Amino acid sequence: MPQAQPQFLNTLPHFQYFGEDALLICDLKLLKLIPDLQNWAAGFSAKYFVEAGEELKNLHQFPSHFEKILKVSQNLNPRNMVIVAMGGGSVGDFAGFLASVFKRGVRLIHIPTTWLAALDSSHGGKTALNVRHGKNQVGTFYPAEQTLLVKKILISQPASRAQEAAGELIKIALLSEDKWVSRFEKTLSITPEVLWKYLPPAIHEKLKIVAQDPFEKTNIRQTLNLGHTLGHVLETALKIPHGTAVAHGLKFSVHWSFKRRIMQQPAFTRAMNLIEKKTADPATLLSLRPSSQRFRSLLIHDKKKQAQDQFNFIFIRDFGKPLCALVTLDELLTEAHQQGFIKK
Amino acid sequence: MPQAQPQFLNTLPHFQYFGEDALLICDLKLLKLIPDLQNWAAGFSAKYFVEAGEELKNLHQFPSHFEKILKVSQNLNPRNMVIVAMGGGSVGDFAGFLASVFKRGVRLIHIPTTWLAALDSSHGGKTALNVRHGKNQVGTFYPAEQTLLVKKILISQPASRAQEAAGELIKIALLSEDKWVSRFEKTLSITPEVLWKYLPPAIHEKLKIVAQDPFEKTNIRQTLNLGHTLGHVLETALKIPHGTAVAHGLKFSVHWSFKRRIMQQPAFTRAMNLIEKKTADPATLLSLRPSSQRFRSLLIHDKKKQAQDQFNFIFIRDFGKPLCALVTLDELLTEAHQQGFIKK
Repeated sequence: MPQAQPQFLNTLPHFQYFGEDALLICDLKLLKLIPDLQNWAAGFSAKYFVEAGEELKNLHQFPSHFEKILKVSQNLNPRNMVIVAMGGGSVGDFAGFLASVFKRGVRLIHIPTTWLAALDSSHGGKTALNVRHGKNQVGTFYPAEQTLLVKKILISQPASRAQEAAGELIKIALLSEDKWVSRFEKTLSITPEVLWKYLPPAIHEKLKIVAQDPFEKTNIRQTLNLGHTLGHVLETALKIPHGTAVAHGLKFSVHWSFKRRIMQQPAFTRAMNLIEKKTADPATLLSLRPSSQRFRSLLIHDKKKQAQDQFNFIFIRDFGKPLCALVTLDELLTEAHQQGFIKK
Repeated sequence: MPQAQPQFLNTLPHFQYFGEDALLICDLKLLKLIPDLQNWAAGFSAKYFVEAGEELKNLHQFPSHFEKILKVSQNLNPRNMVIVAMGGGSVGDFAGFLASVFKRGVRLIHIPTTWLAALDSSHGGKTALNVRHGKNQVGTFYPAEQTLLVKKILISQPASRAQEAAGELIKIALLSEDKWVSRFEKTLSITPEVLWKYLPPAIHEKLKIVAQDPFEKTNIRQTLNLGHTLGHVLETALKIPHGTAVAHGLKFSVHWSFKRRIMQQPAFTRAMNLIEKKTADPATLLSLRPSSQRFRSLLIHDKKKQAQDQFNFIFIRDFGKPLCALVTLDELLTEAHQQGFIKK
């Protein structure tokens, strides 16, 4: 399954670039945020606007979306049809899943419009919907044929969104041994310009990992889960942005790796320096920490759980050297307690 | 995408063959038809019984099935999980689709229990669900890792079911140039023993065609649609079995091919002889033919329709030599009129 290399553009390509059989699936709120988007979208003969967010990924809503989309696309040639997915992570997950099951699969182009989607979710081919008791339990591996990263769109986001993406960019830096990381360590904070500059090496690093394990059959692709076990708990419990939660998760994983002597002092200092310099102050977090019971119940619903209350946890030996190991639920809870992530 | 070769067995393998992480999805009515099935099924730690039929393939029911299946399979290891799909075409289409989207894909084994599923739908990887205005509009290409053909189960079907499968077996014979076809032509009628005997070469022929075009990107795989354009109309309009409808569709295609001088006299005689000798009398059909208006509306909803009222129709030059050509809706209706498939 080839992973398409991303394309970096200054502005949106003309709608004719996508051909006559394109269906645009677009986050509704972008119409207000991006000047001229309405005119651009008008060029598509088939389009479907959605409200971004987790509710878009609700499997129970999918049949109704599907029937409406079947109707708006009825004049497109299915063999040549391409879905152009424009939005953040939820739009990409929804439209990617749709493309993978629409008449047994149609072409797919992503145009991510948030930093998190541009950095992470629009690459690697994961698509997903949710059910009541499980996020991303429904899905496919279906890489886009192209991912277009458009500077004008990404840079136009509020500067605060850049800070929220810090976690994922730092994660991929921790997983990388390449030269770009030492340049990245020297920057002082995560700004839109910094994100745009480091998108190419960060995406390249992710795709290198994905290519070794495209269907997540070994533990290689799971190393991309670094910082996410705790991250997901905090994201849900504290309702904080995904990237911010991941940043806290990274700190947790690096600390635990050091305590278990998986990571040595110099790498630990370097990693903590990278994380702390580039993330916001965790003051809010400390006042809102979940109770032990809540923490436990959120962990149990984690999709990465293995049988018998065991988890695949991603530790880290050094930059570019993750280590996947089984830990028990109790070990995780004890460590989260000791590191102050659980209310006393 | 490798297509697994089918395995021919006399009896069902012991449930332990499928491992500890198997989920059995089984047609409920088989429990009454197959002795000891209940005991066998009891060996599976996770199982889900379904009512076979088109309603099982309704996309609007899928979210509720999915949540129940997530619950019954919660103790299975997702990485090793295998869905064992036991039933006819609708069960295979449903369970195949489920396997392809369950936690981004789990393993799949088909145990077809009808002749049509054993001959055709359990091979080649097509999975499908329906929406209100379209059969099989939702689906994936997801070949089973194994298809087990179990003589004891297939032979136990009522003999009348064998006759209903005739259409698909004759279709694959028409698409084949191999030696088995001349032996098959000499048999007098389609009995369960005849079907069991010709399953291996017929499936081999289908998989040869699928391997050349697994995702239906060229016209090669579409040749398997021989007899199906008219067949689908008759199946819906007259509520007759799929295989019987396809037999009528084959007759229609062979006739039309001969009239258009695509097929020559010797091949025509040989093909008609094969079809007529092995199919039931069309008396019922003649009394129930659809009106011209009904016929037109059923054709328009055919999934194989191209843009602008054009259809990819499969003609045939000779045994093993199909020909895919565009025909208009009017040409199809005129020919169906002339061949007496439409009420005067």
